Amino acid sequence: MLSMESRMKNYIKSVVALTVSWVLVLVGFIPASASSVLTDKGYQLEQVVMMSRHNLRTPLSGKGSIAEKMTSHQWHQWSIQPGHLTLKGAINETAFGQYYRCYLEDEGFMPVDWVPQEGEVSFYANSFQRTIATAKYFSSGMLPVANVHVVHTKGIDEPDPVFFFPLELDTPRLYELGVSYTEQNMPRYLTNGEAMLASFEKVMDFSHSEYAREKGIEHLDPKDVHFVLGGKDKNVPGFKGSWRDAYKATDALIMQYYEEPDNNKADWGTGLTKQDWKNIGDISTRGISMICENPALSLRYIHSLLEKMDSDLSNEDKRFSFFCGHDTNIIMLMTVLGAEDYHVPGAIADKAPIGCKIVLEKRRDKDGELYINPYIIYQSDRQIRHCEVLDLNNPPLRYPIKLTGIEANEDGLYRYSDFKRLLQDIHAQYAYYTET
Amino acid sequence: MLSMESRMKNYIKSVVALTVSWVLVLVGFIPASASSVLTDKGYQLEQVVMMSRHNLRTPLSGKGSIAEKMTSHQWHQWSIQPGHLTLKGAINETAFGQYYRCYLEDEGFMPVDWVPQEGEVSFYANSFQRTIATAKYFSSGMLPVANVHVVHTKGIDEPDPVFFFPLELDTPRLYELGVSYTEQNMPRYLTNGEAMLASFEKVMDFSHSEYAREKGIEHLDPKDVHFVLGGKDKNVPGFKGSWRDAYKATDALIMQYYEEPDNNKADWGTGLTKQDWKNIGDISTRGISMICENPALSLRYIHSLLEKMDSDLSNEDKRFSFFCGHDTNIIMLMTVLGAEDYHVPGAIADKAPIGCKIVLEKRRDKDGELYINPYIIYQSDRQIRHCEVLDLNNPPLRYPIKLTGIEANEDGLYRYSDFKRLLQDIHAQYAYYTET
Repeated sequence: MLSMESRMKNYIKSVVALTVSWVLVLVGFIPASASSVLTDKGYQLEQVVMMSRHNLRTPLSGKGSIAEKMTSHQWHQWSIQPGHLTLKGAINETAFGQYYRCYLEDEGFMPVDWVPQEGEVSFYANSFQRTIATAKYFSSGMLPVANVHVVHTKGIDEPDPVFFFPLELDTPRLYELGVSYTEQNMPRYLTNGEAMLASFEKVMDFSHSEYAREKGIEHLDPKDVHFVLGGKDKNVPGFKGSWRDAYKATDALIMQYYEEPDNNKADWGTGLTKQDWKNIGDISTRGISMICENPALSLRYIHSLLEKMDSDLSNEDKRFSFFCGHDTNIIMLMTVLGAEDYHVPGAIADKAPIGCKIVLEKRRDKDGELYINPYIIYQSDRQIRHCEVLDLNNPPLRYPIKLTGIEANEDGLYRYSDFKRLLQDIHAQYAYYTET
Repeated sequence: MLSMESRMKNYIKSVVALTVSWVLVLVGFIPASASSVLTDKGYQLEQVVMMSRHNLRTPLSGKGSIAEKMTSHQWHQWSIQPGHLTLKGAINETAFGQYYRCYLEDEGFMPVDWVPQEGEVSFYANSFQRTIATAKYFSSGMLPVANVHVVHTKGIDEPDPVFFFPLELDTPRLYELGVSYTEQNMPRYLTNGEAMLASFEKVMDFSHSEYAREKGIEHLDPKDVHFVLGGKDKNVPGFKGSWRDAYKATDALIMQYYEEPDNNKADWGTGLTKQDWKNIGDISTRGISMICENPALSLRYIHSLLEKMDSDLSNEDKRFSFFCGHDTNIIMLMTVLGAEDYHVPGAIADKAPIGCKIVLEKRRDKDGELYINPYIIYQSDRQIRHCEVLDLNNPPLRYPIKLTGIEANEDGLYRYSDFKRLLQDIHAQYAYYTET
């Protein structure tokens, strides 16, 4: 934990070290010196807990899948195994880690060439290739001279229940809460459906697709969607209908958009506008939000991850911890924390962009009071599509998380004691709703 | 060590695993199946030993240095510490490691998602930040789900004598061999000097530089260079004169060229042609070759690295080993091995391009005979400058190493027994020349 004074000492030490070192002072080297506004205001960064979505992966939709059936076009040819992080995803996540190296050095949080002691940092990922690899690339970018160990608890590509779960409403209270939420809120997720599906049909050349031919239709019906309870115990909330089919097909479409920076290739020359792409992103976001914003599901399934994040946050020896999972985890976490509804700019997937991270920064003010600075940080679609190198001059985009259950101070920070109380409330709710 | 049969078994196993796995077969996924010509001819890849130069770094030339004095222009502003791997260098090395993942999977050398056993792979780097980080990024790209340990033996940025040494001719025999080589061969390194310096003067706006003003000259004299023996024992070969100054300044110029993909920025709008850039690359290559192609210096200082590479090559449990050092190591290694003189295409630094690797592949033919396939592999200047993602469709450039001391077969391979004999000869020469 560095005070302002020790930050200055470290800075002076590093300048002296450079001067006396065998390494000469660099031609044109500008030492980074502009810390963040919060640091300048005296909120010193002491600890970081980060929950990341994996970076770019190949589509999950299968051969002969709905994605193939709903278009007359040929999909992008992927050279990487199904569900794996793509080559570009690895590059982008390395860039993200490098940005954090620049940022955390600049904040006085860590020295140049930091090699953390045992227990000071941790990287824990779901056991899928794409989540382990995302954690690995981020860690290399952030700590290139340290030998960081990425922890995963299952065999590769086996789901770890901390991150990936069956989505059952498996107690009476959860069932009631979950079902009534969906019944009440479903219309909210279906607004603007016509425009969204129009963009989808345009890019997919839908009317000439096998799907359209088989069903004898030319257009998708935005009202053709209904709530179902699946699974062997009929307690897994889901949706059916052509809207749901479009949602499933957008996965391959969005991955193609990220992977292919040439618009003309990404949209098969159909002349999609930015708004069209946003509409397509919205299909995906709505589809996942319908499930993951459900308070019963998010409470039930994010609890274990939240406990681990809380445990790291409470551990004074742990300076940086990184968790890596999925968009489902991101949206559930935001739901459980009671974040104000949000739509991040610069990304067609505006709730959980690929590779995005929920960050909890623990900061201490001059009087010794601790605060949490929560935000979501993500590469803009432009940065992703063009594999941009990131640094303090080209940072990823940052969007503050506004918590509705506790009050922020004038600098947008939450007292750590309030935040801990919020977590306790969540634990209490979890206990109540999971009681059988 | 995989036989053809076990390669096929592995392939079938992985196909079955994909089919039965929860991961669906990917939309548009094309399994890589075209192995290299050598593998198709029955030379199965069993082992890889790789000696890498670090990737892109910030210039080593100092503030108020010759690089600043020799131009009227402002140098590129670097955001990374002196002598460190740049952000772009990290991206490029990650891409290089990813290419090797594609290649080695395709060759049947390693399975998808390989997690090597203890001792099967090793990564050993000089203790500079840029060499440790290069090894780290390559390893992440190649083995993203394994926890690879990068070994370095000294404190960060302290030189490890395996890779970085004082260049003294410290025995009478070495001194005699080294000095006579330089006296005889120096003119060879200075041919075409006029054209090279003309390109240099053009980009640097040399005639308006502080250097030109102070010396009262408008042009550099390609004949102004002389051999010196420096160091406290006057046994360190070196050069002095304005040619040498230009050589030192080209380092910053070449790093700017790599870092800045916009030609107009890389050359400060001076309209440099490809040939101009090649001439500038040649200044650098000549300068370093004058020293590192010296048989006495290369024999004296690469011996320790060569012994370690030999030891890995002889270790049947070691499947992949990676060493990371400098251009000096690359050129000395080529010299000691007796490689035919070479100039690789697509790179202005045509003997040891940034991030290049000398690769020794050990392959076994159908009759069980072992061979060495030696080559140098490197990212083209285009791939480096544009941070291109690499894969089997966009591979780095590969250039065969032709050894003059032993004979290649019709497929360009050397019998392993011949190669081992070559190494023994080198060890014997080392013993003779270092005797005091």
